[in-house]
Amino acid sequence: MNTIGKAFRVTTWGESHGKALGAVIDGCPANLPLSEEDIQRELDRRRPGYSIFSTPRREPDKVEVLSGIFEGKTTGTPISALVYNKNQRSKDYSKIKDTPRPGHGDYTYYKKYGTYDYRGGGRASGRTTIGHVIGGSIAKKLLEYTYNIRIIGYTIKVGKIKGDFNYYSNPEIFLSSNSNNSINKIIEKIESDPLRCPSSNSQEMIEYVKNAMEMGDSVGGIVELMVLNLPSGVGNPLFSKLSGELSGGIMNINAVKGVEIGRGFQSTELYGSEMNDEYIYKDSIQLKTNNCGGILGGISCGSPLVMRVAIKPTPSISKTQKTVNLKSKKEEDIEIHGRHDPIILPRAIPVIESVVAIVLVDLMIRGGFIHPCNLDINKK
Amino acid sequence: MNTIGKAFRVTTWGESHGKALGAVIDGCPANLPLSEEDIQRELDRRRPGYSIFSTPRREPDKVEVLSGIFEGKTTGTPISALVYNKNQRSKDYSKIKDTPRPGHGDYTYYKKYGTYDYRGGGRASGRTTIGHVIGGSIAKKLLEYTYNIRIIGYTIKVGKIKGDFNYYSNPEIFLSSNSNNSINKIIEKIESDPLRCPSSNSQEMIEYVKNAMEMGDSVGGIVELMVLNLPSGVGNPLFSKLSGELSGGIMNINAVKGVEIGRGFQSTELYGSEMNDEYIYKDSIQLKTNNCGGILGGISCGSPLVMRVAIKPTPSISKTQKTVNLKSKKEEDIEIHGRHDPIILPRAIPVIESVVAIVLVDLMIRGGFIHPCNLDINKK
Amino acid sequence: MNTIGKAFRVTTWGESHGKALGAVIDGCPANLPLSEEDIQRELDRRRPGYSIFSTPRREPDKVEVLSGIFEGKTTGTPISALVYNKNQRSKDYSKIKDTPRPGHGDYTYYKKYGTYDYRGGGRASGRTTIGHVIGGSIAKKLLEYTYNIRIIGYTIKVGKIKGDFNYYSNPEIFLSSNSNNSINKIIEKIESDPLRCPSSNSQEMIEYVKNAMEMGDSVGGIVELMVLNLPSGVGNPLFSKLSGELSGGIMNINAVKGVEIGRGFQSTELYGSEMNDEYIYKDSIQLKTNNCGGILGGISCGSPLVMRVAIKPTPSISKTQKTVNLKSKKEEDIEIHGRHDPIILPRAIPVIESVVAIVLVDLMIRGGFIHPCNLDINKK
Amino acid sequence: MNTIGKAFRVTTWGESHGKALGAVIDGCPANLPLSEEDIQRELDRRRPGYSIFSTPRREPDKVEVLSGIFEGKTTGTPISALVYNKNQRSKDYSKIKDTPRPGHGDYTYYKKYGTYDYRGGGRASGRTTIGHVIGGSIAKKLLEYTYNIRIIGYTIKVGKIKGDFNYYSNPEIFLSSNSNNSINKIIEKIESDPLRCPSSNSQEMIEYVKNAMEMGDSVGGIVELMVLNLPSGVGNPLFSKLSGELSGGIMNINAVKGVEIGRGFQSTELYGSEMNDEYIYKDSIQLKTNNCGGILGGISCGSPLVMRVAIKPTPSISKTQKTVNLKSKKEEDIEIHGRHDPIILPRAIPVIESVVAIVLVDLMIRGGFIHPCNLDINKK
Repeated sequence: MNTIGKAFRVTTWGESHGKALGAVIDGCPANLPLSEEDIQRELDRRRPGYSIFSTPRREPDKVEVLSGIFEGKTTGTPISALVYNKNQRSKDYSKIKDTPRPGHGDYTYYKKYGTYDYRGGGRASGRTTIGHVIGGSIAKKLLEYTYNIRIIGYTIKVGKIKGDFNYYSNPEIFLSSNSNNSINKIIEKIESDPLRCPSSNSQEMIEYVKNAMEMGDSVGGIVELMVLNLPSGVGNPLFSKLSGELSGGIMNINAVKGVEIGRGFQSTELYGSEMNDEYIYKDSIQLKTNNCGGILGGISCGSPLVMRVAIKPTPSISKTQKTVNLKSKKEEDIEIHGRHDPIILPRAIPVIESVVAIVLVDLMIRGGFIHPCNLDINKK
Repeated sequence: MNTIGKAFRVTTWGESHGKALGAVIDGCPANLPLSEEDIQRELDRRRPGYSIFSTPRREPDKVEVLSGIFEGKTTGTPISALVYNKNQRSKDYSKIKDTPRPGHGDYTYYKKYGTYDYRGGGRASGRTTIGHVIGGSIAKKLLEYTYNIRIIGYTIKVGKIKGDFNYYSNPEIFLSSNSNNSINKIIEKIESDPLRCPSSNSQEMIEYVKNAMEMGDSVGGIVELMVLNLPSGVGNPLFSKLSGELSGGIMNINAVKGVEIGRGFQSTELYGSEMNDEYIYKDSIQLKTNNCGGILGGISCGSPLVMRVAIKPTPSISKTQKTVNLKSKKEEDIEIHGRHDPIILPRAIPVIESVVAIVLVDLMIRGGFIHPCNLDINKK
Repeated sequence: MNTIGKAFRVTTWGESHGKALGAVIDGCPANLPLSEEDIQRELDRRRPGYSIFSTPRREPDKVEVLSGIFEGKTTGTPISALVYNKNQRSKDYSKIKDTPRPGHGDYTYYKKYGTYDYRGGGRASGRTTIGHVIGGSIAKKLLEYTYNIRIIGYTIKVGKIKGDFNYYSNPEIFLSSNSNNSINKIIEKIESDPLRCPSSNSQEMIEYVKNAMEMGDSVGGIVELMVLNLPSGVGNPLFSKLSGELSGGIMNINAVKGVEIGRGFQSTELYGSEMNDEYIYKDSIQLKTNNCGGILGGISCGSPLVMRVAIKPTPSISKTQKTVNLKSKKEEDIEIHGRHDPIILPRAIPVIESVVAIVLVDLMIRGGFIHPCNLDINKK
Repeated sequence: MNTIGKAFRVTTWGESHGKALGAVIDGCPANLPLSEEDIQRELDRRRPGYSIFSTPRREPDKVEVLSGIFEGKTTGTPISALVYNKNQRSKDYSKIKDTPRPGHGDYTYYKKYGTYDYRGGGRASGRTTIGHVIGGSIAKKLLEYTYNIRIIGYTIKVGKIKGDFNYYSNPEIFLSSNSNNSINKIIEKIESDPLRCPSSNSQEMIEYVKNAMEMGDSVGGIVELMVLNLPSGVGNPLFSKLSGELSGGIMNINAVKGVEIGRGFQSTELYGSEMNDEYIYKDSIQLKTNNCGGILGGISCGSPLVMRVAIKPTPSISKTQKTVNLKSKKEEDIEIHGRHDPIILPRAIPVIESVVAIVLVDLMIRGGFIHPCNLDINKK
């Protein structure tokens, strides 16, 4: 339940205010060059304090690797890595002890387990995605090392503000083989924008979020995700399709309320003759268009993978809300103190990318694309 | 890969034009009253020839149960059931042997396996959902027998025509405990409509589909899914959440391109204060609204489960399309002869319901809601 | 629970007196030449009526393959195969309905499920090993096709009679690369002996069993199992070692009460300096001796795999035994009518071989030895 | 591969000379009282330096729990615990870098992964059983808390010296309900004996081991394992039987070469009428004898569980042995310096007990005996 993957398995652990959070990665083949820096780089992308919109809980989130790497390379044994919480000596949580916060998992955890860790959401906290990113950083390295696969996530909508950049407005950027330069420019824009949005109107979105912050409120938005250089043949019929594994993985991420592939919900308005992607021959068999978003029959077709993810507004808001005391059964007001991210999209992006990377590595090992034990065999 | 579930496992098998298709259900607890009729009833709901819009391949699709039931009750051992293909002595498929059909899995299966069964799509055919429905019918029986849980799917949009009935337009129907009568009326409307649409403007949708048919084209649409009487506490953090398991399961179904829970993609336009569902006390702790769609922190909260599923237009169309011959690498025209469902929504609904039922039973057994071995213990 | 394997998965179903028994094999890579005859040949080796010591229930046990093979080769989709019971219209079982038979699973199934199929043991019957053999026959074909791996099981002890042939008495036969001729002669002897025993004193064993039969009693014995040509590197640390997967699989077979690898229990009497196998170089790095039985650190080392399996005497005997009526709680005498195998060793051998073959294929796919999807890639 | 269990999952990590070793326990239900002391107590039982026969590597092996416990009780979230290596700054291993040690996993790890951690065996080291014991200590606590189940392991044979105490010589001690006193006395004897042997002739064994030590050699032996108070109905047909899960788990432990249940290999010499355990009625339905060792049809029958485990002599010996250099392919002498356990039985016992405890908890959760989420529901 806290493990994702079958051949490449990431088991995460830790609570928001526990001693530490971490992950054990089992099934990473031997002979992948890997260092703590590879993991730290991705953790830094989701760190609190990363942007003007993230919580001021300024933790360094420094990773320590405790096993699985020997002489700079993986050995095929489990990689255990963790981040100690520096900041967990926390304020008085007793006030909110019995009053579940609206929009959070407090109430459902309580119903499921008969108890819950009320300090910052415990295991239901977004802070647990540290484990996702530890696993994802290794998966990303593996995808790049073996197939030069790149995973790129960015914001395309914030609240009611739609950006002017998305895959279907610029498919040629991602299709052309000599477009690495253009792609790198887009990535640069993404990583320098506080909302990780490459659209030219991202400033408009920033104002929208600032406005919500001032009201003590929060906003959501849509992330688009691209995967480049994925070979054809990844994904297993019938209950472990690429589409299902990716969607299931992404919908397990906190705050995600919807996911679509290729034309997604818009495809329901198209005729079959508009939606179907015809085949052409250009050095190899290719799809003329990519309405399917890179997946046909649940298996990758060689075109870029395109997905969109709906993220709800952060449930922690400053505004007073109604709740019910679990013990007294009385209705009460609840106020969530402290500052909270008014939007989690920018920090959610490395988490989504991580889950996608983990799912892809898992399916590629299971599908014979990546050797399960020894990458040197893969490289030959 | 052809198995769904961990505690309640449905393994399906069979190809479009093979001898038979079927499923083995392992992990169904003992002492559930079960008959072939329970399975047949659901199979009839997805049968070819079910409505004016379904293919004329008039197969009886008669189920045979070969194991797992003794003296009218399940025994805890695997239930094997199958449907023999009556109609598989088929036309000449040699023409399309090397020319993958746009929008289908032909090409990706070929890339993955180095071969594919070109007769009607083989394992990638929609006909394989017979296995889903066999498993789903048993799961449904189990949900009803233990918790009176009902799963109701219906069409809310066809092509560009939006229906006037959906959960958020009428939440009170599903919340009131004495609304069984209203619900039954809706179900009656659903099951008597050729598109399984309870909206008052379903005739408009019917005309839309007929028009596409005449053009040799096809259309898609959106299905909404409700689950009633699901107790709170179902779903496992972090990688086996109710949201992820349901979405992953549904996105594995043929032709599904998107899925959302509760307010879904619309939630991205709401403020946190609008999206959050406050708690109230009315005999028990309840959510005042249900924007979350019945799931918080990945665990069911006791409110009705609400999901929407995007289904692309049927890829098989009469119009001529371009493809590439796998052997000669030459571009060719392809024409798909015979009549095909111009829309698969109505027949997809029992399949989606089946997957949802299987996922729920699986999570409820794993979560301690349904006894894994002996329902008589559950009933006590 | 009724599935063995992770990458190569065999799901079995069916009861002793149900309509049919069968198996679904999922994860068999595409492009393996396979026919019903390949399966039938192995089924014939476990068939009732196979030898003078097997039950006279003379069922043909004719296999039917319903899916997964197209144009003489596997397609990568699930292979469903079954055997219809011809003989199940059975005698009156009502007498033994509430009186669990000593040594059988009747009582424990009843305690677990609150019910049990009292007709011939239902799912606990040895007849369910038809499913093992269906799966095993495909696994064997795959092992032979890819690596020329051979699995050879034979009896080395019956009751108190010890045979004069076993691996450690003749290791050179199995080590020499040009010993195929000798091995084939041994196999010929095994398959022509009613006890599948290649020892020169097998006639003594036959008399021993005949004698027990006359007393209305039964006997057990020990099977030795060899695997030849298994490459080094098969098996996963720490909880999925070759040793653990094989032993777990074998101990799940009916009537097995013990298993040992290499020197096994005898190794406990040796000093480390006697037990350790030193390394030598002869064209390649090799073990000088094979006390380890082909496994070191849970991973195959390239030497022949050697295991021994203890099989208890058949629990069904003609002699009167004491039991307790489940309803009345009264002690009663029970007599098991009909003829029963006085020894199950010879028929258990193809079952043990099948489980070993399934475990090996599963580990070899997961270990990168056999391509998970397309054997044509493997062959290149 | 480094995870054991399906519902109760223990994932272990760490190498002999890495920074730390540990385990993540996922699926432990909430509300179990648990402290670091509960884990430390079991770790102390396998600690180096525990007896006169264990290595002088005197590490404190102090456990730290990093997650999953809140206010003295489990919360249902993953429990992460680890032990830092204090002693890992190690001698010069470069000498043995390319020369695999006989009887160890060095050579097979190298073949599987193309690399191996030559410092003390890396992941193949017995030191990795720290993870087993962390998981096992929690499993034991859970078994005792819910069903008062006790697991007792002890030595019954060392080298060629057979002890005079074993289950079948004294079955009445374990059957009588008022024998707690006798059992506690036996446990006291076990825990105070350097070989964990309750036999009166254990001194003879001690001399035997001392003698081997002086010769620079090592010895093996047999462990017997009892499980008391296990209810009937635990274990799943057909591929996840109690017998198979236990045997598979135990055979995965380092140095184990054989396992048997009940009469085990001896049962092969009995007639069916001798082996079968008849039923009697004494307050409840019971087995008159316990030749089956507590398991029938793969499911627990309510009698004490009885198993025996063969452990080979420690492969690390002082005597000079032959090996082959992996790089030069030349035969070489190898000498393993330092002191090594001349026998590992006494320290293996808590490891075997741990694996048994983990397997039992896993099967009992999956079988509905222990609530998967909330022990308070179990207790009601």
